[in-house]
Amino acid sequence: MRDPAQNAQLALLLEVSGTPKPGNVDRHREYDDLRFEQFMAGAVGALPGLRRAAGTDALGAAFETAIEGMSHQSGGNTQFGAVLVTVPLVRAAATDRLTPEGVAAVVEDTTVEDACAFYRAFDHVAVAVDEPPEGADDLDVRRGGDATDALRERGLTLSGVMELSAPRDGVAAEWISGFERSFEAAGWVLADEGPVYRRASRAFLRLLAAEPDTFVATRNGAATAREVTERARAVLAGDEDPEALAEEFVRRDINPGTTADLTAGALFVALERGLEV
Amino acid sequence: MRDPAQNAQLALLLEVSGTPKPGNVDRHREYDDLRFEQFMAGAVGALPGLRRAAGTDALGAAFETAIEGMSHQSGGNTQFGAVLVTVPLVRAAATDRLTPEGVAAVVEDTTVEDACAFYRAFDHVAVAVDEPPEGADDLDVRRGGDATDALRERGLTLSGVMELSAPRDGVAAEWISGFERSFEAAGWVLADEGPVYRRASRAFLRLLAAEPDTFVATRNGAATAREVTERARAVLAGDEDPEALAEEFVRRDINPGTTADLTAGALFVALERGLEV
Repeated sequence: MRDPAQNAQLALLLEVSGTPKPGNVDRHREYDDLRFEQFMAGAVGALPGLRRAAGTDALGAAFETAIEGMSHQSGGNTQFGAVLVTVPLVRAAATDRLTPEGVAAVVEDTTVEDACAFYRAFDHVAVAVDEPPEGADDLDVRRGGDATDALRERGLTLSGVMELSAPRDGVAAEWISGFERSFEAAGWVLADEGPVYRRASRAFLRLLAAEPDTFVATRNGAATAREVTERARAVLAGDEDPEALAEEFVRRDINPGTTADLTAGALFVALERGLEV
Repeated sequence: MRDPAQNAQLALLLEVSGTPKPGNVDRHREYDDLRFEQFMAGAVGALPGLRRAAGTDALGAAFETAIEGMSHQSGGNTQFGAVLVTVPLVRAAATDRLTPEGVAAVVEDTTVEDACAFYRAFDHVAVAVDEPPEGADDLDVRRGGDATDALRERGLTLSGVMELSAPRDGVAAEWISGFERSFEAAGWVLADEGPVYRRASRAFLRLLAAEPDTFVATRNGAATAREVTERARAVLAGDEDPEALAEEFVRRDINPGTTADLTAGALFVALERGLEV
């Protein structure tokens, strides 16, 4: 019924609809300058790129198209990471290999031109990122399309870019690991019961409790990222109220965005595997 | 940036995201068997039909495609009326005549085959409707595609069907009136300030206060429909709390769905006219 591009769009919508997801925009909480409705517009705009990902176009170009479309709202970066998690999964699903091995092959197939398109995507929207790895200032993603000469000189593929970023970026780590956390969390979502917005919330909390969120580490520091993991564990153990924690994280501007991105990937895989909405 | 089909999909998403909208599913309230997330899936599924409406296909076929796609979720009828309001507006926008006169011409152009496709759309989803007009049992929409012989024998166009239903159905009345309430409410949304979800809520309340909701009249009776109008006026006058009213309407299963449908139409027109999200 729904094709992979449609399931990816729905995964973006279900991710932001999941509540409570402490620290992230959801149905019940938002920031003045980053609102729920902007995520709706982001998902609408991302679809043409997701459709390219489901086709035969180069993966990097599909990603850039999705981000360019996503950027047509006034909130800025709503779903950069979620789209980055989803695009290779869409390609794998559209080519009947939605498995860790299948999506690893999709990643393996990326080219230097895919890396250039990935960098150009940063020209469309401001993304909070860490400093580039040492000795790789020419590869700072904040250079956007200006970095493509450096990419070509180094012969760096998109897979290679992700390998460089993986130690400090949870989405890049996902690319390099065969999306193991997305697949694992998809299993949780499918084995869970009840409305999808609750399943999404629980999968988010389990992912958050398992590993520090790299977006929090970048923006708020490693100590805060460790605290967030502990607090998520406390919620899962029943020792902390997730709604109160959500209020606190919004107040402290703690936004576990990478974990939300992985939740979107998990929801996409779950939809492809029969999750009913 | 967004084309008319994308703006229509976004209008469906923004309508259900608007809160508070007493009695309707929104970000903060839902029914056990009709959930917010099912409206997300409905909007995802409706897009291919909305895209046909933006093209040159027959309008009835575009509508049926949108409803068939919308039905791919387990909540049943999420957005039948909202899609019915939106489809002729999309056609008008795509042909550069998004005015009351332009959309009246779109309606005027509909054929008997459009009426047949409209009836077939009822085969995809259960819609709460009133009894057919007297002497028109053969035109009961609950007959779905079985009624097409009767439509052809009577030579009834989709515009003619809407004219028959207009006295008791607010969406049909909108078709016959050049979508005057949608255009008027679009003006309110554009002149309003702040986040779209609040503008959508206020436009909904003003529409509800202006005329009894025909969906409430059909399901809960004329007296309740009149009460709902009075209560909406009380909210606008500051004499009643909309959040408390929303709780009460959900509890009493009062769902002003037709007014929500018109709100979706208003949001579409507002987006086409530059509403920023």
